Amino acid sequence: MGRVVVEVMPKPEILDPQGKAVVGALPRLGFTQFTSVRQGKRFELEVDGEVTPEVLAAAEQAAVTLLSNPVIEDVVRVADIEADAAATVTSQGLA
Amino acid sequence: MGRVVVEVMPKPEILDPQGKAVVGALPRLGFTQFTSVRQGKRFELEVDGEVTPEVLAAAEQAAVTLLSNPVIEDVVRVADIEADAAATVTSQGLA
Repeated sequence: MGRVVVEVMPKPEILDPQGKAVVGALPRLGFTQFTSVRQGKRFELEVDGEVTPEVLAAAEQAAVTLLSNPVIEDVVRVADIEADAAATVTSQGLA
Repeated sequence: MGRVVVEVMPKPEILDPQGKAVVGALPRLGFTQFTSVRQGKRFELEVDGEVTPEVLAAAEQAAVTLLSNPVIEDVVRVADIEADAAATVTSQGLA
């Protein structure tokens, strides 16, 4: 059973009121490091078999037709979630 | 200027009506591969300098106190977005 992750963010020129609310709340909780916050969406799509290139292509198509609104949002990632998990370890190791 | 990505998903045992709506709509658009969909959130937090281990630790703390509701959501990733971008290339290369 494979899983594909699709990530969608508001385009940079689009106002993001949820992100603005978060960036306003952070300093009140003592987090003063962060200068800007954007909030988007993360989808996990499950398939019965392996994540083949065809499945990834279908996920990309679904990402632009259903999971995002191309006028105001960008699809920032479509990836096999297992590779994604491996990548997380790497990025935390680098930090 | 560094950016940290924080990803939050509903816990597996929690009903996810947005994901259910998406999985119902996909077959109507011709996408029959996907058996289940979960919808979560993706945040991009911007900092002025580098993404240091301290910044990542603060982002993790913010993730569990403000960006997620620990009763119904899991923080699935907190990572430097540059490492993340490199990882995306890798995961698409593997696919």
